[in-house]
Amino acid sequence: MANSKYEYVKSFEVVDKLMPNTWIVVRIDGRNFHRFSAENEFEKPNDVQALNLMNSCAVAMLEEFPDIIFSYGVSDEYSFVFKRTSQFYERRSSKILSITVSFFTANYVMKWKEFFPQKDMRLVPSFDGRVVCYPSNENLRHYWAWRQVDCHINNQYNTCFWMLVLNKGKTKKEAQDILKGTQTQDKNELLFQQFGINYSNLPAIFRKGSCVFKDKVEEIVKHTESGDPVKRLRKKVVVSHCDVIEDRFWKDHPWILDE
Amino acid sequence: MANSKYEYVKSFEVVDKLMPNTWIVVRIDGRNFHRFSAENEFEKPNDVQALNLMNSCAVAMLEEFPDIIFSYGVSDEYSFVFKRTSQFYERRSSKILSITVSFFTANYVMKWKEFFPQKDMRLVPSFDGRVVCYPSNENLRHYWAWRQVDCHINNQYNTCFWMLVLNKGKTKKEAQDILKGTQTQDKNELLFQQFGINYSNLPAIFRKGSCVFKDKVEEIVKHTESGDPVKRLRKKVVVSHCDVIEDRFWKDHPWILDE
Amino acid sequence: MANSKYEYVKSFEVVDKLMPNTWIVVRIDGRNFHRFSAENEFEKPNDVQALNLMNSCAVAMLEEFPDIIFSYGVSDEYSFVFKRTSQFYERRSSKILSITVSFFTANYVMKWKEFFPQKDMRLVPSFDGRVVCYPSNENLRHYWAWRQVDCHINNQYNTCFWMLVLNKGKTKKEAQDILKGTQTQDKNELLFQQFGINYSNLPAIFRKGSCVFKDKVEEIVKHTESGDPVKRLRKKVVVSHCDVIEDRFWKDHPWILDE
Amino acid sequence: MANSKYEYVKSFEVVDKLMPNTWIVVRIDGRNFHRFSAENEFEKPNDVQALNLMNSCAVAMLEEFPDIIFSYGVSDEYSFVFKRTSQFYERRSSKILSITVSFFTANYVMKWKEFFPQKDMRLVPSFDGRVVCYPSNENLRHYWAWRQVDCHINNQYNTCFWMLVLNKGKTKKEAQDILKGTQTQDKNELLFQQFGINYSNLPAIFRKGSCVFKDKVEEIVKHTESGDPVKRLRKKVVVSHCDVIEDRFWKDHPWILDE
Repeated sequence: MANSKYEYVKSFEVVDKLMPNTWIVVRIDGRNFHRFSAENEFEKPNDVQALNLMNSCAVAMLEEFPDIIFSYGVSDEYSFVFKRTSQFYERRSSKILSITVSFFTANYVMKWKEFFPQKDMRLVPSFDGRVVCYPSNENLRHYWAWRQVDCHINNQYNTCFWMLVLNKGKTKKEAQDILKGTQTQDKNELLFQQFGINYSNLPAIFRKGSCVFKDKVEEIVKHTESGDPVKRLRKKVVVSHCDVIEDRFWKDHPWILDE
Repeated sequence: MANSKYEYVKSFEVVDKLMPNTWIVVRIDGRNFHRFSAENEFEKPNDVQALNLMNSCAVAMLEEFPDIIFSYGVSDEYSFVFKRTSQFYERRSSKILSITVSFFTANYVMKWKEFFPQKDMRLVPSFDGRVVCYPSNENLRHYWAWRQVDCHINNQYNTCFWMLVLNKGKTKKEAQDILKGTQTQDKNELLFQQFGINYSNLPAIFRKGSCVFKDKVEEIVKHTESGDPVKRLRKKVVVSHCDVIEDRFWKDHPWILDE
Repeated sequence: MANSKYEYVKSFEVVDKLMPNTWIVVRIDGRNFHRFSAENEFEKPNDVQALNLMNSCAVAMLEEFPDIIFSYGVSDEYSFVFKRTSQFYERRSSKILSITVSFFTANYVMKWKEFFPQKDMRLVPSFDGRVVCYPSNENLRHYWAWRQVDCHINNQYNTCFWMLVLNKGKTKKEAQDILKGTQTQDKNELLFQQFGINYSNLPAIFRKGSCVFKDKVEEIVKHTESGDPVKRLRKKVVVSHCDVIEDRFWKDHPWILDE
Repeated sequence: MANSKYEYVKSFEVVDKLMPNTWIVVRIDGRNFHRFSAENEFEKPNDVQALNLMNSCAVAMLEEFPDIIFSYGVSDEYSFVFKRTSQFYERRSSKILSITVSFFTANYVMKWKEFFPQKDMRLVPSFDGRVVCYPSNENLRHYWAWRQVDCHINNQYNTCFWMLVLNKGKTKKEAQDILKGTQTQDKNELLFQQFGINYSNLPAIFRKGSCVFKDKVEEIVKHTESGDPVKRLRKKVVVSHCDVIEDRFWKDHPWILDE
């Protein structure tokens, strides 16, 4: 066959299977979203429609890829975890990474108008991604905790920063200087004293980020002749802004880690 | 800092830098495009608008990423090569792969209407991708030759196949049986005898695929007082359907491999 | 510094850290030991002195490298496991592999005379090696089970084979033919019928292979004035030929997997 | 087969083939040789017998593994390069690394008495190793240059250091302080002024390190009837202490890089 003379170049391809029996996390991150959000005039510190768009893409991911059993997003990043036993594309890292980031990106563009009906999208959005494996359930839970603590720290800082800039007329430099070295408690005080804001009353989507996963929901499938509802448990992809650091969420949804 | 307790999970991330001084090829491939092209009623065996859309995305790639110095596409696949000295994202494989596939995907969705003004896109398109490095110029040239030979073989087969199905009323199974075991020459004969088609007269975009690269083009920058044009060489991204197997193309565009 | 001009070549070195929180198994295997054992006239099917030499090298390994918490050997292969939390050479795969195989090899040569006082070693012995990580205790236990089942299958076959060759005057080809397709039970029958051998009475070192690990042994540290012994538990490297497939061994030595 | 239940653990093994068409360098390094050389009372700054032992092991390597076409050693380290086209163990990194380091180690122990007939070896010697690939001949030549520049810098420093300690009664701390911040020229001056040593007259094995490679040597195969010698070129493994930074060596031995 004419092809064989050049086909040897295939031998340079690398086998990149991920370790079996580990959780596969793919984290994607908006590329140059600082500029993208500025050009598209996202609200500061949080644009709820931009977050809802991200969440909607995550929902599409879980509906498309049954092996993704949980995901968590904040700002312009989202993490998806494939179950430990997943054989998705034979666990080939490049395939899993590229398809995840590509499908998410396509949804982001396609769903834009649904969330920003008044705005034409400016600039081409894109996301980078990485794959990380975790061998134990504890490691995986610490991964989610890491992201949610990060969400809290960033959101609290950004809330203070933008309140100072937008409502007190501070320059960005001045706002930075005011916040330098402050602790969690100091920032809560600042918000309360200067702006009458109780941080813990801010929307959970900002403070906690968003979890997208398959929940067991009860649904009425039909009614008996006497009019009583017949219910059944069904798995449905849901969006929630719960705490994933404490045990409670995981105890309430044992099927996520137990598969 | 509150974060440190969980931050250890970052240590599970893998360093995936690609070997320095090698050509970095990223090849992307439509995922489930068999179905995608059917749903969107692409013409068979080749839909020229679908190819033009792919090429337009490739042009956007070369305009966005200066380190990509050549690319080649056929059907629903496209290969991009980053120059050997590239330090794009410190040569981190995951970053290069994910950004390439993500930016291409976003363009594909955004440019759809430009090429299919009458058609709403059905289904969510996505692409998988892989990264392969080549240590020598010869290896890299063989890579392009491999893809172009593949283009030829597939296109010749598909042209025969769809002529038999669409113009002779054969079933797909019958067409397959007719073509089984035929050589290049047999297929050319078949096209000529049964359909009056001279294969080599078919559009080059179908037979050769598409190259997108930076060419040196002469442009008039101004005119002298006496009306004579003042020209200068400028690099411009072009689409071409040339032979990349023979030496000629590479001799005519020495800056591609020499950087 | 004069060196800097060339020092860039260091950037081609690859970071090869093994996934944290996984068991690191290094398995080494005699290279060309078919020939090495023939030249050195090892007894067939098993040379107890050659096995004792291997075991003695394994003991040296556990005494040198505290992170190795269990090892198992059969024939000319040996597997060592480093504890999940090991930070030995920052978990760099090349370092762990090369040092393991090098230190084992040096011991093999140095201890030869101790086990073969009458024989000068012929040929240069060498071992190849590989590194495999396991994320769960169950995976690791299955690894040992895999090697021990392999030991059983090979030893039973080899015992039959060499009895037929050495005691019945069969050629190697004839012996192979006789054994082709036989099951475990058939081989036991053959040994018993033809040679009066009860397979399960053969030495455990042949049937089970050898485990080398740190056991808790009671030792007398001193005597009280009244002559009563004062004992204490101490960890000591021991060689044993026990079953590692069933739970019992692991229940009796919980510190191995629990660290 | 009884084995199959556990055999899945093999799927955790990693494919680690090295990139085709690249030079494969394995560098090995004495582990804890600071202590090993002290215990075995190696002469300072260089023990010529210890170096000869290393070189002898390298010769054994080139005689055993035909794909190794050049090697370079200094102090307790040695680098071996496998030709670009090598298919040794299918270019599996673990195999190549482990066998190189194991065979070298075995030779080191076995040849000890040949070079130190009066000394029993103390401690168990071992070597670590790493594998690095280079895509171009220039990169490979820079690798050797890097090692030889390193040899020069270290040897010049060590020569000064030990002369100060051994011949001037300086403490190690004092010697360090004297040498801190000195340049090449300063050290040459110091050696000449204080010890009457012309650095460039020191043995080349100390200043240049050792190259072991296959050279083309003329040998007399027979004599004609009239007594004239009949010669032929033969490849023979040689040890040499030449400059591998300049072009000359590579021009004189073109077959090394051209294969």
